[in-house]
Amino acid sequence: MENFDVKAKEILIFALGGLGEVGKNMYCVQYQDELLIIDSGLLFPDEYLMGIDYVLPDYQYLIENQDKIKALIISHGHEDHIGGIPFLVKQVQIPVIYASGLSLGLIKNKLEEKTTFPVNLQEYHEDDIISFGKTNVSFFRTNHSIPDSYGIKISTPVGNVVHTGDFKFDFSPTGSDSNYHKMARIGEEGVICLLSDSTNSELEGFTTSEKVVAETIKDMFKSIEGRIIISTFASNIHRIQQIVEASIMTGRRIAVFGRSMIKNIDVGYKLGYIKAPKGTFIYTRNNTQIGNEKLTILCTGSQGEPLAALTRIAGGVHKQISLIPGDTVILSSSPIPGNLQSVNRTINMLYKRGAKVITQSPFADVHASGHGGQGELKLMLKLMKPVYFMPIHGEYRMLKTHAGLGIDAGVKPENTFIMENGDVLAINKDKAYIKGHVQTSDIYVDSESIGEVGSLVIKDRRELSDDGLLSVILTIDEEHHEISCTPNIVSKGFIYIKNHTKMIEEMEELVINVSEKFLSEDKKLNINGLKNDITRALRNYVMKQTKRSPMIMPVIMVL
Amino acid sequence: MENFDVKAKEILIFALGGLGEVGKNMYCVQYQDELLIIDSGLLFPDEYLMGIDYVLPDYQYLIENQDKIKALIISHGHEDHIGGIPFLVKQVQIPVIYASGLSLGLIKNKLEEKTTFPVNLQEYHEDDIISFGKTNVSFFRTNHSIPDSYGIKISTPVGNVVHTGDFKFDFSPTGSDSNYHKMARIGEEGVICLLSDSTNSELEGFTTSEKVVAETIKDMFKSIEGRIIISTFASNIHRIQQIVEASIMTGRRIAVFGRSMIKNIDVGYKLGYIKAPKGTFIYTRNNTQIGNEKLTILCTGSQGEPLAALTRIAGGVHKQISLIPGDTVILSSSPIPGNLQSVNRTINMLYKRGAKVITQSPFADVHASGHGGQGELKLMLKLMKPVYFMPIHGEYRMLKTHAGLGIDAGVKPENTFIMENGDVLAINKDKAYIKGHVQTSDIYVDSESIGEVGSLVIKDRRELSDDGLLSVILTIDEEHHEISCTPNIVSKGFIYIKNHTKMIEEMEELVINVSEKFLSEDKKLNINGLKNDITRALRNYVMKQTKRSPMIMPVIMVL
Repeated sequence: MENFDVKAKEILIFALGGLGEVGKNMYCVQYQDELLIIDSGLLFPDEYLMGIDYVLPDYQYLIENQDKIKALIISHGHEDHIGGIPFLVKQVQIPVIYASGLSLGLIKNKLEEKTTFPVNLQEYHEDDIISFGKTNVSFFRTNHSIPDSYGIKISTPVGNVVHTGDFKFDFSPTGSDSNYHKMARIGEEGVICLLSDSTNSELEGFTTSEKVVAETIKDMFKSIEGRIIISTFASNIHRIQQIVEASIMTGRRIAVFGRSMIKNIDVGYKLGYIKAPKGTFIYTRNNTQIGNEKLTILCTGSQGEPLAALTRIAGGVHKQISLIPGDTVILSSSPIPGNLQSVNRTINMLYKRGAKVITQSPFADVHASGHGGQGELKLMLKLMKPVYFMPIHGEYRMLKTHAGLGIDAGVKPENTFIMENGDVLAINKDKAYIKGHVQTSDIYVDSESIGEVGSLVIKDRRELSDDGLLSVILTIDEEHHEISCTPNIVSKGFIYIKNHTKMIEEMEELVINVSEKFLSEDKKLNINGLKNDITRALRNYVMKQTKRSPMIMPVIMVL
Repeated sequence: MENFDVKAKEILIFALGGLGEVGKNMYCVQYQDELLIIDSGLLFPDEYLMGIDYVLPDYQYLIENQDKIKALIISHGHEDHIGGIPFLVKQVQIPVIYASGLSLGLIKNKLEEKTTFPVNLQEYHEDDIISFGKTNVSFFRTNHSIPDSYGIKISTPVGNVVHTGDFKFDFSPTGSDSNYHKMARIGEEGVICLLSDSTNSELEGFTTSEKVVAETIKDMFKSIEGRIIISTFASNIHRIQQIVEASIMTGRRIAVFGRSMIKNIDVGYKLGYIKAPKGTFIYTRNNTQIGNEKLTILCTGSQGEPLAALTRIAGGVHKQISLIPGDTVILSSSPIPGNLQSVNRTINMLYKRGAKVITQSPFADVHASGHGGQGELKLMLKLMKPVYFMPIHGEYRMLKTHAGLGIDAGVKPENTFIMENGDVLAINKDKAYIKGHVQTSDIYVDSESIGEVGSLVIKDRRELSDDGLLSVILTIDEEHHEISCTPNIVSKGFIYIKNHTKMIEEMEELVINVSEKFLSEDKKLNINGLKNDITRALRNYVMKQTKRSPMIMPVIMVL
């Protein structure tokens, strides 16, 4: 483990997660013995990580430097920024977590569900300044696809570090404006290093305004006659408010389906982000008394998640909702790359059941991204005028493209740092340089257990998924050093072995021959050696017979 | 199996594959005892079909109606139209296969590699008319992303059926023009039913012309100074010719990598589709004598396929090519949805190794689709003026959208048929109607074996991939009706069982208790009953301890 000199007048900036990926964001800014953590997210794995539920950063550096941690500061309430908190607080003593508005509400819910001990959770407001001694933290409001998203300024004796959080500049937002003036003041004051969101760095221009989306949705609601079934991210409270307004305007009541949707609307309503007259939302199991033209069904499943409400509706297996002629389904969302096929499957099923389906297209803006395009990223760079620039929150190609935008916007090429998780950028009065590397890795969460499933288990699962498993159980009489009965051959996910009696017989014979030869030469009963011989012989035989390579698992029972 | 009256004056039209999917295209047009097959493709499965290499249609109808088959007619040489041929001819006696130009060359190669018996393969030309008695077949040239793509007209006593094949209308193609006039004449003559390509039915307007792509590529080649590494589909011979021309113009020689790329260039060159001065292509293993600015590397891997040349280059494991500073990589392709993530991984790796990467974007047209957009589909409908319209070649949403375009273009709504594989459309002088359904299913090809791996094996693989496997081996003394030694517990892809000795001990004890109880009550040694009891007990225990549900596999050895 790296040991940094806590006397050096240097800012250390590094990510435990979030570089080279979209997910598990966790950035650290350390000045001497003051360590500030920004965000604690998780990553939803793609199908490549078989059976894994989430991926977390490795918290080892934090465990070893627990005494220096001053606070965890949350930029906004998305899972890739707050989802790791329940796991983090179990492993690391965090003196205080600062979050704002909706983020605070969502974290509270999460901690109540998943932890049993008290966590010091504090609310911040935009004008707060939180001092820790040598460093202090302040905030500036941004636009994003969830309310209460903030950029964070960390002041240190060496200069100000700015972390934008996830942002776009929406000139006609649903909800509050970005705080352009505070950002401009921070830029004037001076920014030594900017960490900025790279998600949409490959998209030209500006992201579509939420106002355009709101108007598109209203126009659609006006023209649709039957039921409207609409799905969006449960955390997109602004979008939900747009749907509420379109429903009220067209005299529709809203039935809400999906656990996370109900929970988020509940939090959003309590905090005043969702405004609706009493009776707008109906949670009853029986909506038959409401006419189709008076009903909006708002549900989860915009990403084709297997168990979500819309997926069940599309598959005809939802307990309360069956599609009927005249239904229109609106997907107010865009599929993240890993979910493209499951979203596609859902859409095909909806079409098959006769629904009209509307998805985001250049001709129907029913969704806008929460991340700024190149125009917005350059505006941020112009406002902040950083000396050093570190693109964050993105795959390598996005970071790289964002670095290019930084250079276009006036950052010196040698002052841009495309880093990987764990790389430590040190900044002092004279220069910035890569000082070293702290431990990072992907920690898998599988059914609530953290780190028990490692990459070797995943490798096994991948191998099993490819050609299945072939197991042979051999019983050996230790005393007489011989096989005591016919080997037992079983398989799963390989082929229907029952239809291959000749193959089974040949494999049995093969195992007997290999084992007898081994036992006659081997005097000390080397079980692993015997296993290796059996595995090798079976692998060759099976490859020759079937061109397949199932995982071979010999089990030796010694009597 | 459906039995159709071979005296009825009806055309029967159905698909054994290609409806509700993009892949395994195989359409049948039957008039009385004359059965014509159009195309014999395969489908590349998504990651959902664990370990499966290809999916084929079920050939059962063809096997049972072998006596009626007159010919297999190939529209063009893509794998989703010709890839099934080697498997088909092993199961069904096909009197003759008609193909044209490049398709013929590719099929010949395929048959030489994969079959040992003679197949009657005949070439057709655009002006040929092939007569079978009651029916005859003729052709019209179209544009697509492979040369020698044809639409097919089948004349019957009831009327003409037109199958477009895969097509676009490119007003400035690389290669030959579409035969607009022949299509117009066919439309004037009369089309009773049109089967038309739905792949891009959701895209407005017209597909980008190949001329635009050719010019973009030339401009890029002019401005790039270092090595150019460019990847496209190996079958896109027109694109390869564009790359050849851009290379010649800028004084570059072309090193070709990837087995299918070498093979296709070879066929394309022999047939005259690829024109290049001698010495343009270099196949030597040692290119070091050629300057970087004089070298184009043309390779496979545009879809991120794990073993393809570009993927190996990106991963730094290609035997002959290492990326060097100044390299530019051009992906002259677009990822098909199932490959989005692997393409993404490749691009990130290329960036990390310092390459500049150019992909298709609205600002750099380095690729154009081979399938027509809504404008082209409507033009085809206008030219053909069909009485009945059956959208083919697409997922349900694409067929549905295409049917809407058909109605816009003048087809009566009741005359459009959105069908599924196996649905039989019957057309006589008076009407068209769904007459029945022939057997269809997905046949899995796993390492060259056809149909041996069924959906239950896939289900097992999926289960194994999710939480792995837990096996217990129990040895029973039949004579004394008791357990003869401690049960042996092994696992793969579950957890590191070695780190869980307490859990193993508890499971052993559990198995002993369950088994002893069972054996004391059961007099006849019901092995399956015992297995069920053990499985149930272990599943509950493991779920309680780990929240996971690995596949449980008890093995009982009776001594």
